[in-house]
Amino acid sequence: MTAMDAFQDHYPDNVAHCYGCGRLNPHGHQIKTIWDGDETVTVYQPEPFHTSVPGFAYGGLIASLIDCHSTGTAAAAMYRQEGRDMDSLPAFRFVTASLHVDFLKPTPIDAPVEIRGRVQEIKGRKVVVRTEVRSGGVLTARGEVVAVQMPENFGA
Amino acid sequence: MTAMDAFQDHYPDNVAHCYGCGRLNPHGHQIKTIWDGDETVTVYQPEPFHTSVPGFAYGGLIASLIDCHSTGTAAAAMYRQEGRDMDSLPAFRFVTASLHVDFLKPTPIDAPVEIRGRVQEIKGRKVVVRTEVRSGGVLTARGEVVAVQMPENFGA
Repeated sequence: MTAMDAFQDHYPDNVAHCYGCGRLNPHGHQIKTIWDGDETVTVYQPEPFHTSVPGFAYGGLIASLIDCHSTGTAAAAMYRQEGRDMDSLPAFRFVTASLHVDFLKPTPIDAPVEIRGRVQEIKGRKVVVRTEVRSGGVLTARGEVVAVQMPENFGA
Repeated sequence: MTAMDAFQDHYPDNVAHCYGCGRLNPHGHQIKTIWDGDETVTVYQPEPFHTSVPGFAYGGLIASLIDCHSTGTAAAAMYRQEGRDMDSLPAFRFVTASLHVDFLKPTPIDAPVEIRGRVQEIKGRKVVVRTEVRSGGVLTARGEVVAVQMPENFGA
């Protein structure tokens, strides 16, 4: 993987339909996350209709971005820990066990939203990711996601 | 307010554009929440493209529904506490200070999702709402939202 392609570009096709991050979901956000040193970064431009009150992005969007950013970060961190390319097998794909968001101030809707994540802990199949959300350099929200490797029988 | 109209039908026009719950946002979810005794209930049918993995609803949608259900519940609870109609002034409108979701199992995408909430605490301008998410009667997620009355200068 080169520096510029995104974690989500490497998700196996059968798990690339997520509304938040799946490259195969034409209706979705299709977020893209990359490494920046030990941090992971997603930049997303809200749509004009992703409103909370006029002028600001709604909390569900911020939560969604944090969620998918963090499961992507969890997968990337596991590959990195194993020194493996993200296209190598077996594939890592994570689901969210818990999601926590603290909304600190309104996030403007007309500017790109930047999410930065750090892996707090890797323990077995579980990865804890902490995130900060900024708009124009101003911190507007903090997130914490507990991500777990998708069970083989997920949804069965 | 009659038993059948929803909390969101009473939001003042200038705060009825939320992507999750605003009746004036034609792109959004436009959720509707009502009282059922001491509980509040929202039923929402996910769109086919609200996918996590095929067949299941993505976590960001569940988080969004919990978020808007809970701010609506907070407003309704404040009116009820004051014995006031939801159209009376001054209007109560809440924003989310924090959102927590525990995802217990995948939520099917092809069936209505039911969110039930209870007010855990009202303290000054803050209301804590706990929610359970079910599909076909099966508990799939739990939420807790700390909602606060929207400041007069919100976004200023």
